[in-house]
Amino acid sequence: MTTSSPASCTPSSETAAGVRIGIDVGGTKARAVALDAAGVVLAHSELPSGRGADEVLATVRTTIERLAAASPDPVESVGIGIPGTIDFDRGVVSHAVNLGIDELDLAAGIADLEVGRVSVDNDVNAAALGAFQLLGGGVSSLAYLNVGTGIAAGLVLGGELWHGFRGVSGEVGHLGGYGDLLCPCGQIGCLETIASGAGLARSTLGTTHPVISLTAAVAADDPIAIEILARVAGGVADAAETLFLVVGVDLVVLGGGVVHGTPQLAPAVGRILDERAAASPFLASLSLSERLTVAPVDLDIAAMGAAFL
Amino acid sequence: MTTSSPASCTPSSETAAGVRIGIDVGGTKARAVALDAAGVVLAHSELPSGRGADEVLATVRTTIERLAAASPDPVESVGIGIPGTIDFDRGVVSHAVNLGIDELDLAAGIADLEVGRVSVDNDVNAAALGAFQLLGGGVSSLAYLNVGTGIAAGLVLGGELWHGFRGVSGEVGHLGGYGDLLCPCGQIGCLETIASGAGLARSTLGTTHPVISLTAAVAADDPIAIEILARVAGGVADAAETLFLVVGVDLVVLGGGVVHGTPQLAPAVGRILDERAAASPFLASLSLSERLTVAPVDLDIAAMGAAFL
Repeated sequence: MTTSSPASCTPSSETAAGVRIGIDVGGTKARAVALDAAGVVLAHSELPSGRGADEVLATVRTTIERLAAASPDPVESVGIGIPGTIDFDRGVVSHAVNLGIDELDLAAGIADLEVGRVSVDNDVNAAALGAFQLLGGGVSSLAYLNVGTGIAAGLVLGGELWHGFRGVSGEVGHLGGYGDLLCPCGQIGCLETIASGAGLARSTLGTTHPVISLTAAVAADDPIAIEILARVAGGVADAAETLFLVVGVDLVVLGGGVVHGTPQLAPAVGRILDERAAASPFLASLSLSERLTVAPVDLDIAAMGAAFL
Repeated sequence: MTTSSPASCTPSSETAAGVRIGIDVGGTKARAVALDAAGVVLAHSELPSGRGADEVLATVRTTIERLAAASPDPVESVGIGIPGTIDFDRGVVSHAVNLGIDELDLAAGIADLEVGRVSVDNDVNAAALGAFQLLGGGVSSLAYLNVGTGIAAGLVLGGELWHGFRGVSGEVGHLGGYGDLLCPCGQIGCLETIASGAGLARSTLGTTHPVISLTAAVAADDPIAIEILARVAGGVADAAETLFLVVGVDLVVLGGGVVHGTPQLAPAVGRILDERAAASPFLASLSLSERLTVAPVDLDIAAMGAAFL
C-alpha cells in the first residue's frame, strides 16, 4: 500500500465539508482516493484486492482506515465501485465472479468505521461518473464504454448516473448478431463473444495474455491478428454507435484493459466510424469519431467516480 | 373536422390554470385535443394535414382556433408534434419529407393567435410523452417504439422527455447488420430496411399497401408472408431488446402504422423475446416480454403528449 499526503494540508474549518473516500475494487487491485470538499486529492491508496468476501472486505476496511488517517478532516462519505450485481439501496454486492464473491454486505461490513454515508455501485458506473467529473467538461451526458473481461457501458445522463431498470443499462455486450459462439449469458453470438478480453481469449490468438499477444502480433503485421483487431474494433464501433444513436450521449469514453492494453484498438474504432460517416450524410452530421475519446490510463477515474457516488 | 365538448363544462375560476392544446400533425391527419388544468379532454379535433408548409400551417391555425373556441378558459399553451428535424428552441420544423415541408417556422406562424407558450417536438417524442402520461403508471422511464414508414423510438427517462445530442436518441432504425439493402441514410443493412413500412414496401410482398397485404397473406398462411413477418418481428425484437438493455427503460410501448396494421406483429415480437429468455437466464431475469406493450390505437397518445410538451 502507498499513501501520500500533500506537503501542506488546508487546516480544517467549521465551514469545510468532510472528506470523501472513493474505492475502485478491481479484479486484482483496489485503488482509492481521499478527496477534500473541493474535490482535491488528499491521499491515494493501492492494495491487492484479495479474493473472496472476507479478503475483499478486509482490503476495503484497511483502505478506509489508512486514507482516514491521512486526511485532515473527518470522513463524510465512502463510495465503492465493484464488479458484480449491486443492491444500491442496501450496499450489497453479489455474483462478483472475478473476485470470488457470492455475496458481500459492504455497507454492514464497514458500518463500525463511522465514515458517514456509504454508497456501493458497479465499477463501470463509478468509472462513468469519474469520467464525467474529469473529462466531461461542457457535456451533459456520456457513456463510459469499458472493454475488459466483458464489454459494457456506464451512463451519465443530464449530469446524473443513470441505472436503468433493476440496474441494467449500457449492456451492449449482449446485443446479438456476432457469429456463432455461445456466450456465458446463454445466447449465441453476443457482441461480448468477439469484442472483449474473454472473446479475445477464445480467438485463434488465444493465450493466457490475449491482449498482449494481439498487440504484439498486430505490430508484427500478422494477418490473422490484423483481422482479429478489425473484428474487435468493428464490434466496439457498433457499441459506440448504439450509445450515440440510441442513448444519444454527447460523448463516449473508451476504457478498460483491452483498450489500454491494445493501443491500436481505439484509433481503429475511430477509423471505422469515419468510414461509416463517409457513406452516410446522417452519420457524418453527427461527428461520431470526434465525440469518442479514451480515458487516460493514469487517471483513477473509477476511484474518483466512486468518491462522487 | 369534428369538435366535441362535454355536456357540462366546469366553469372557469380564478385559480384554474388555462387550457393546453396538443396537436399531432401526421402524414395524412392532424389530430388534436384541448385539455383542462386537470388533464381532462375538453374537445377533440381532426383535419386533413394538407401538404406543404402553407397548408400545414393553415391546418394548425384552424385547429387551434376551433379548439380555443370550444374551450371555456383561455389557452395557456400549444404543443405540436410533427415529423422532421426540429429546432426545439425556435419552434421550427425542417425536412418533413412526408408533409412536403422544407422548413416551417411554426412558432412564428401562430404567434398572432396569442396562445401562450408554444412547443414543437418530433411526433415520436410527443407520442412517447403521451404514452408515459396515459400508460406509464408506476414506471419512471419508457421508450415509445414507432414502427411506421421508418422505425425509431422516443424516450422518457426519469419522467422527462430525453432528446439526446442534437435531438438524436432512440434512432434504432440505423443500427446495422440486417442484410444488404441500401438505406436512404447511405448505409447498407440498416434495421429500417427490413423492419419498417418502407422496408416492407421493398419486400417481395411489396405493394402500395404493404401492411394490409402482409396481414392478409399471413392470415392465409402464405409461407413467404410468414417468413417476412418473422424477419420484421425479429428486427423489432432487436430494437426493443436494445432499448431494454442499453437504455434500460422500464417499459417499451409499440405503436405506429405497421404495428396497428399488422395485428400478428406485436405477439410475434413477444414470442421472440420469450424464446431468447428461454435460452438465457440473464434475459429471463429481466422479464422483457412482460415489459412490452402496444399503444391502444384509439388513444390519441401523440396529441395528448403534445399537450404536455
